[in-house]
Amino acid sequence: MLKSILLNGQATQQIDIQDRGLQYGDGLFETLRVQDSRVPLWNRHWQRLKKGCLRLAIPLPEQDLLLEEIHSLIAGEEQAVLKLIITRGKGERGYASPTTLLPSRILMLSDGPDYPPAYRKSGIRLYTCETRLGINPALAGIKHLNRLEQVLARNEWQSPDYQEGLLLDTQGHVMEGTMSNIFWVKAQQLYTADLSHCGVEGVMREIVMEIAKENGISLNIGLWSKSVLLDADEIFVTNSLIGIWPVSYIFNMTLPAGPVTQQLQSMLQAKYDI
Amino acid sequence: MLKSILLNGQATQQIDIQDRGLQYGDGLFETLRVQDSRVPLWNRHWQRLKKGCLRLAIPLPEQDLLLEEIHSLIAGEEQAVLKLIITRGKGERGYASPTTLLPSRILMLSDGPDYPPAYRKSGIRLYTCETRLGINPALAGIKHLNRLEQVLARNEWQSPDYQEGLLLDTQGHVMEGTMSNIFWVKAQQLYTADLSHCGVEGVMREIVMEIAKENGISLNIGLWSKSVLLDADEIFVTNSLIGIWPVSYIFNMTLPAGPVTQQLQSMLQAKYDI
Repeated sequence: MLKSILLNGQATQQIDIQDRGLQYGDGLFETLRVQDSRVPLWNRHWQRLKKGCLRLAIPLPEQDLLLEEIHSLIAGEEQAVLKLIITRGKGERGYASPTTLLPSRILMLSDGPDYPPAYRKSGIRLYTCETRLGINPALAGIKHLNRLEQVLARNEWQSPDYQEGLLLDTQGHVMEGTMSNIFWVKAQQLYTADLSHCGVEGVMREIVMEIAKENGISLNIGLWSKSVLLDADEIFVTNSLIGIWPVSYIFNMTLPAGPVTQQLQSMLQAKYDI
Repeated sequence: MLKSILLNGQATQQIDIQDRGLQYGDGLFETLRVQDSRVPLWNRHWQRLKKGCLRLAIPLPEQDLLLEEIHSLIAGEEQAVLKLIITRGKGERGYASPTTLLPSRILMLSDGPDYPPAYRKSGIRLYTCETRLGINPALAGIKHLNRLEQVLARNEWQSPDYQEGLLLDTQGHVMEGTMSNIFWVKAQQLYTADLSHCGVEGVMREIVMEIAKENGISLNIGLWSKSVLLDADEIFVTNSLIGIWPVSYIFNMTLPAGPVTQQLQSMLQAKYDI
């Protein structure tokens, strides 16, 4: 449930209809985990937002101002979810950027996350989506507001028996989940998708890659067809809110929450308290 | 300049920040030409909107209600532009559709279009964009709100010497303009892009294809590399507001407003008063 919103520092529920975020999806977002009145992974989210703003040529908000607003909003919150949206701001008709840009910064504080602890322990069931991710290096990696592919994919299943959906790209490569990144293990080695042509480079994906490296687990990044998952020893998905969830079911196949997944979960818990 | 807005029938400037149009670009739009208090191409725009709503599983608004709101807004308007946006409406956090959908319908009335008559007569200069259109059949053809590719492409040039930009897909095929469809003529035959894997199926593109057929001009629809444009006798772009604009400059090459383009313009004028 949504608790409160700040738009450019002001409490409100509303935004200008001429905002280019609505008109064109012309903006970026971050979904942040709030813990004990803090945003523990702030710096990583900030770095990705910075990269996204640079890519879309949207002026980056001042970090101090943003942090001030964030802290005013999350003070006293033990556990919550904060969504940060930056748009190019209001504009007249047409795709051309306004000559004077006044980006909108939106902070939305919600309850949660309230996922059952069993997802982390025993794993989740992965639905295989028909919707594919279009290939476009210009938009790959960043967390922009053009999310119709994710919306279509997520709405392919209604059953609560599936907690996440697997997305391939239009060439059939394994890419990510609708709201997470995907990793798999084969013969003690870790694998994940190359996201230079589509997908979102998740903050938790980055952390898992670092932890794997620190612990001598080999990581392979590339483009693979979905048959690699049929052959995997372990599969898991990651994002900033969930940390690591083992995948216990995919393609009519059941898997255990395997030793590499559990090792990475423990290291994540020890180092980042997630 | 924007003159007025109706959101679900109410005059306002604001929309709920939780609207999925802003959160995910989860919606569709149409840009309609208003002439003498009427929307002459309404039925064609309505058909495309219907197709888009079906594709995205957004409930279609009632046509009678929409037309009532449109006519209340455009009464007395001799020449204007009306933008219609339909979004999936307000939602809580996450890509899954709300169980109860209350789509938002937005009508935005603006002045214009006020393009110099020379564009139609002598033609326009086409900038060749670096930004490519990603390939995704699930979103191809419809006019959805995920428009970052167009925003990036349109912002590649600031010079007023260019009136439109040429977009290729990520495989290098000629697709469309940032706000228009593209046609070219070679040896009296007409050519345009197959838009089944990306691009927007414009209302004016459809009309031009019909007029060509009625007048015995052969039309070829397919996927072509940009070298076909280097070799074209005539090139033109189309949309509902501009009708047909000849392209007089592309790739350091100048072209005349050729006979087939002029013939199609005359027929469009005679039949549709555009």
